[in-house]
Amino acid sequence: MTTATQPLDPEQLRKLDAWWRAANYLSVGQIYLYDNPLLKEPLALSHIKPRLLGHWGTTPGLSFIYAHLNRVIKEQDLSMVYVAGPGHGGPAMVANAYLEGTYSEVYPNISRDEDGMRRLFKQFSFPGGIPSHVAPETPGSINEGGELGYALSHAYGAAFDNPDLIVACVVGDGEAETGPLATSWHSNKFLNPIHDGAVLPILHLNGYKIAGPTVLARIPRDELEALFHGYGYAPYVVDGDDPMTMHQLMAATLDIVVAEIQRIQNDARAFGFDTRPRWPMIILRSPKGWTGPKTVDGKATEGTSRSHQVPMANMTRPGHLEILEGWLKSYRPEELFDVTGKLNAELAALAPHGERRMSASPHANGGLLLRDLRMPDFRDQAVDVPRPGGVDAEATRVQGRFIRDVVRLNPDNFRVFSPDETSSNRWDAVFEVTDRCSVAQITADDEHVGPNGRVMEMLSEHQCEGWLEGYLLTGRHGFFSCYEAFIHIVGSMFNQHAKWLKVCNHIPWRRPIASLNYLLSSHVWRQDHNGFSHQDPGFIDHVINKKAEVIRVYLPPDANTLLSVTDHCLRSRNYVNVIVAGKQPSPQWLDMDAAIKHCTAGIGIWPWASNDQGGEPEVVMACAGDVPTLETLAAVSLLRTHVPDLKIRVINVVDLMKLQPPSEHPHGLSDRDFDLLFTTDKPIIFAYHGYPWLIHRLTYRRTNHHNLHVRGYKEEGTTSTPFDTVVKNELDRFDLVADVIDRVPRLGIKAAYAKQAIRDKLIEHTHYIAEYGEDLPEIRDWRWQ
Amino acid sequence: MTTATQPLDPEQLRKLDAWWRAANYLSVGQIYLYDNPLLKEPLALSHIKPRLLGHWGTTPGLSFIYAHLNRVIKEQDLSMVYVAGPGHGGPAMVANAYLEGTYSEVYPNISRDEDGMRRLFKQFSFPGGIPSHVAPETPGSINEGGELGYALSHAYGAAFDNPDLIVACVVGDGEAETGPLATSWHSNKFLNPIHDGAVLPILHLNGYKIAGPTVLARIPRDELEALFHGYGYAPYVVDGDDPMTMHQLMAATLDIVVAEIQRIQNDARAFGFDTRPRWPMIILRSPKGWTGPKTVDGKATEGTSRSHQVPMANMTRPGHLEILEGWLKSYRPEELFDVTGKLNAELAALAPHGERRMSASPHANGGLLLRDLRMPDFRDQAVDVPRPGGVDAEATRVQGRFIRDVVRLNPDNFRVFSPDETSSNRWDAVFEVTDRCSVAQITADDEHVGPNGRVMEMLSEHQCEGWLEGYLLTGRHGFFSCYEAFIHIVGSMFNQHAKWLKVCNHIPWRRPIASLNYLLSSHVWRQDHNGFSHQDPGFIDHVINKKAEVIRVYLPPDANTLLSVTDHCLRSRNYVNVIVAGKQPSPQWLDMDAAIKHCTAGIGIWPWASNDQGGEPEVVMACAGDVPTLETLAAVSLLRTHVPDLKIRVINVVDLMKLQPPSEHPHGLSDRDFDLLFTTDKPIIFAYHGYPWLIHRLTYRRTNHHNLHVRGYKEEGTTSTPFDTVVKNELDRFDLVADVIDRVPRLGIKAAYAKQAIRDKLIEHTHYIAEYGEDLPEIRDWRWQ
Repeated sequence: MTTATQPLDPEQLRKLDAWWRAANYLSVGQIYLYDNPLLKEPLALSHIKPRLLGHWGTTPGLSFIYAHLNRVIKEQDLSMVYVAGPGHGGPAMVANAYLEGTYSEVYPNISRDEDGMRRLFKQFSFPGGIPSHVAPETPGSINEGGELGYALSHAYGAAFDNPDLIVACVVGDGEAETGPLATSWHSNKFLNPIHDGAVLPILHLNGYKIAGPTVLARIPRDELEALFHGYGYAPYVVDGDDPMTMHQLMAATLDIVVAEIQRIQNDARAFGFDTRPRWPMIILRSPKGWTGPKTVDGKATEGTSRSHQVPMANMTRPGHLEILEGWLKSYRPEELFDVTGKLNAELAALAPHGERRMSASPHANGGLLLRDLRMPDFRDQAVDVPRPGGVDAEATRVQGRFIRDVVRLNPDNFRVFSPDETSSNRWDAVFEVTDRCSVAQITADDEHVGPNGRVMEMLSEHQCEGWLEGYLLTGRHGFFSCYEAFIHIVGSMFNQHAKWLKVCNHIPWRRPIASLNYLLSSHVWRQDHNGFSHQDPGFIDHVINKKAEVIRVYLPPDANTLLSVTDHCLRSRNYVNVIVAGKQPSPQWLDMDAAIKHCTAGIGIWPWASNDQGGEPEVVMACAGDVPTLETLAAVSLLRTHVPDLKIRVINVVDLMKLQPPSEHPHGLSDRDFDLLFTTDKPIIFAYHGYPWLIHRLTYRRTNHHNLHVRGYKEEGTTSTPFDTVVKNELDRFDLVADVIDRVPRLGIKAAYAKQAIRDKLIEHTHYIAEYGEDLPEIRDWRWQ
Repeated sequence: MTTATQPLDPEQLRKLDAWWRAANYLSVGQIYLYDNPLLKEPLALSHIKPRLLGHWGTTPGLSFIYAHLNRVIKEQDLSMVYVAGPGHGGPAMVANAYLEGTYSEVYPNISRDEDGMRRLFKQFSFPGGIPSHVAPETPGSINEGGELGYALSHAYGAAFDNPDLIVACVVGDGEAETGPLATSWHSNKFLNPIHDGAVLPILHLNGYKIAGPTVLARIPRDELEALFHGYGYAPYVVDGDDPMTMHQLMAATLDIVVAEIQRIQNDARAFGFDTRPRWPMIILRSPKGWTGPKTVDGKATEGTSRSHQVPMANMTRPGHLEILEGWLKSYRPEELFDVTGKLNAELAALAPHGERRMSASPHANGGLLLRDLRMPDFRDQAVDVPRPGGVDAEATRVQGRFIRDVVRLNPDNFRVFSPDETSSNRWDAVFEVTDRCSVAQITADDEHVGPNGRVMEMLSEHQCEGWLEGYLLTGRHGFFSCYEAFIHIVGSMFNQHAKWLKVCNHIPWRRPIASLNYLLSSHVWRQDHNGFSHQDPGFIDHVINKKAEVIRVYLPPDANTLLSVTDHCLRSRNYVNVIVAGKQPSPQWLDMDAAIKHCTAGIGIWPWASNDQGGEPEVVMACAGDVPTLETLAAVSLLRTHVPDLKIRVINVVDLMKLQPPSEHPHGLSDRDFDLLFTTDKPIIFAYHGYPWLIHRLTYRRTNHHNLHVRGYKEEGTTSTPFDTVVKNELDRFDLVADVIDRVPRLGIKAAYAKQAIRDKLIEHTHYIAEYGEDLPEIRDWRWQ
């Protein structure tokens, strides 16, 4: 007989517990065993791995949850994925995938027999094997593990626009202390019960992180429940350590919360969205290293931080081998696997079928579900540029119109993510077709806010990045629009995503996903008003430390090149694309045809700005980025006045990776092509958007590197004018002219006059801005002729 | 008559409101006025600044709080500082500092008269003036503003070990959405009411961030209160928009919470610490842009996101000048300032005296209070190194003993901060003299946890960094111990702190503070067990983008050099010191005398490892970092066997900045010294800890750069062995030998044999680890002879 509080009949209870024991047995085996996987022989030191690595502490709890989720999946034919925040619980996720058969399907050598089990055990945390984390190699995973803090954002990202999916997300109490995780509970204000799926957060309190107690395990229950009530959830507590009692409790709780999720969804889908629902969440309090050794060497182990990693790390100590053998046998493996190592049929039958297995869900291998975006023609947004410099435009505003059309054409698999900067970065056009998303209270004064909005804005770069990653990893598309300086906030998340992509490139069953696209605007050169704290172009430096095969950096100089680059990025797969572009009105250089050609090449001579046709230049003026391009062209214009016979070649770089040798990056120019562009012996004045040394880093192997002189941002800034900001960093037109003059000795007396004129102009500029607070009109209004 | 709910008598109320009006008047003046500061003439366009920049929205709320805090400070002679999370509220903090007189004391040109007021207005967000944020230039500030998210961690950091201080911390509802802020509420589990001061968080809900509504402003009041109850606070709500009503409410609330803070402290200080107190906090809900224009161009402005920045940004539009004039006059400036621009005496008398003024608190200019650390002699911890490579030690474990003694000698102004990695990074010795800090529940199984602990561990790098910054900025000392890969999490916080230090270097009244010291251990080369996600040496690259005058990077190769470097860093001021060091048992190279000499030079030839004495080497083998040093010496050892007559010079780099030209960094070697070390024409094989291109970036201007070949981490990693990890990145001894051979042509046939031997050894290694999971014993146990 079953009841609401005892929902499992004895048979169900026995089987569910057996699955859990099997998962635990396989987990301990992975951590310890080199051989003798079925314990057919008495355990000996030769059966133990030489290095014991892994994390037992969180593992049994993860498997406990897994087993229980499988019951409800199977009973109710649910579509679920499992986000395992405690990434160190790799053994659990691998064990359950193996029990479900998925593991052997994707890795046939890890077969469902004694040999396969031996390999399963050996490969764990072993050279040539698999990491101890939930890693790309783990079927069913969407980039948990490694760095902590992002499980819940990933889970919500996975749930957006997946109405039939329930994302179970286990949050460890260690991870719960991180900032990103602490704010990600608020994601429930952005989840629409009609067209989004559900997230079921399971806070797993086991009391300790590596060494110390956790914050949430040490606050009274009333505070804990108040906290999650405050976060907008209905918390259900499952607390205890006796397995059989806990099974009934967990099963009863899962029945309630799944019913509650369905009630919320059914209500909203039948009657329309009304008010933000109070979604359920589970607080599972169980001992760290549950079912592991109670004591080791006389010290309490189960339930303490001594269970965090390997409870007995030195197996040569007296008694340790016996503890391990007893521990393994406590799971009664002979009831779980037959003599060939095959999982008993009645246990195998507990696994959901096919893609219902969480380890085999296509949502956790998003490339399988990825549909190409329906792409508007970016040429439709082209700015009409009758001649270079002939018109002004705000590049990102133009880009925003293209993004608007992408939003419109892809109403269920494309979203925009931004820390409240969509409008500030000039993508206002998207609000013609959608809103900022919010299922919280909306007031009459709110503009473009609604429960169906596809612009995800929360003032947390972490949340935006985590949502987007979860959305991409489950097979959808998106764009992150951010201030350039503050994208550093997610530098470490970017690291983890780039590493994930790199590893996935070498896992055949992982299918390519859409690229992670960043627009970085409100960039360093136009933070003159916000000042020094808002000026940092270093994210590019950070990005290009990652493997060349997964990263791309673009610095389109105007609107049409930005459109072309944006189109390219949206069609790409498995990259991180960084686009840096300005939002202020600026001269436009290329018409659409020229822009497409220029972006396709990624780098090129601008003949209309050069006067070296048919011969070698005396100086090469290169530029990358919108403001450096403007200053370079203004410098060229000054040089034409002062030294009209000087032969100048102007090169613009859109694709920064073109500068590297092809051995370093697939986009890299051959040395021959590089030399043709940059000459082998002429001075190069390179005006660059970011920190100048990056250009040296990219080009130090090139023939003409010793003639390369780079100007860029060198950490000089305060609240001032746009032009004063470039002057402070010596990237301005006058300093560029001086750089040229200094490097072309033949200019002689002309040069002396030109330098004097420059000095006078800079002094005039300084006086003018101190008085009027604005740039000299002749500088502000300068246009290319 | 006053009552508990109406604590202000009419006179008090009038004056308090007048102060607030004065602050608001000065704030609007800063945003708009170029001239006519006292409105003696009818307002004209010529009185308006040409560029209107700044943030009005949060400003009146900040001033409202300031005025009320002043009342309780003065009435009760409290010591308080004001942390203004909404950093864009610069005008408010500047206005109040000006009203208090502090501003004119530190900037005599901004005098307390009409001329001074004109300058005060003009300088704001004006070239050559001050930023729109609460910036280093703002007296009373400790690094709020700029990037959001860290106000509350800073506040708690300021309160630690400051028993008489109350830190009022205003958290904007925008900032409250960030991850770091969301977790920093939990800081109350780490604040000891006996020897720490108090933090009074004031959550300022004004409903909007730049463009969209905020999360916390749109949840029902029961959820909001539950959230803060769950965070462990007693929330007090002050909600409304009528100034006079709000004054009484706020005053009544402040009386209650200050009494409550004192009761908590008195209880704990009289009777000892018992259980974590429930500290009070205030939720202030008031309109965005409070007291500003109700509508502009027919659109609601006060109370909406249209008040976020400048309510009327285009003053040439009809009616705008009139709105501004009416707005300014609504504060009745003629009642606040006399005709000379001097603040009325009765208002001036509202300011607390001297250092009680929050703008003049020495706690907000920590260098004033900074005491030197009492320093133990680091030589006492020296590892006895009879000959190079003669003993093994765990460098950070040795360092931990020195840190232990620093903790012991400085019981009230030095703390250790770590995301639960103090023990993992081998600083266990500190637990001989102190505990992990926690005022939450402590259980019998906890090790080294106590309410007086000076080790601040929370699994949040943000929190650790924020606490430490707050602690340093208020004049104390500390150390951050972290895993190398995950320090990227605070990359953006580091940016802000480094920028703060750079600006402070040029503000005479800002006194130097203790350096921010990072130990980065569990570094890239010994994350073989945790795998790829834990491998990232790029923080160094990030750090050296910041201004040379504030950053230092050290890579001590062993324990004694680590001790020497640590001592140096703890004595330094106004820097960010990054120390990368290993925690695993490794050969020790230098005895203490040699270590001190080597660290003092920062770079040097190791004669005992070189055989080029008295002549030029044929090859220079340089190394930086413990593992690269080991591999370099092992390579030298192999070369001695295979090509004994090869003249090798070994150079070790401790201070990475030595490599840069002196024009780029004050530590940089002169070109002459560099050439003496590295030769002008011999091949250099450089084994480097991090990404190899960094060494190129630092040295590209050096004479011999074209002969430089760098090995380092190139994003190849997975779970494997330590040696396999260096092999995967070609930093291993065998690849280094091959690099040498490839660059010394005269070696001829010997070289061919040596390369074959290397190839064989690498194959043997690969087979061995695949089978045994450990490195070849001859490699693992290799020792320098």
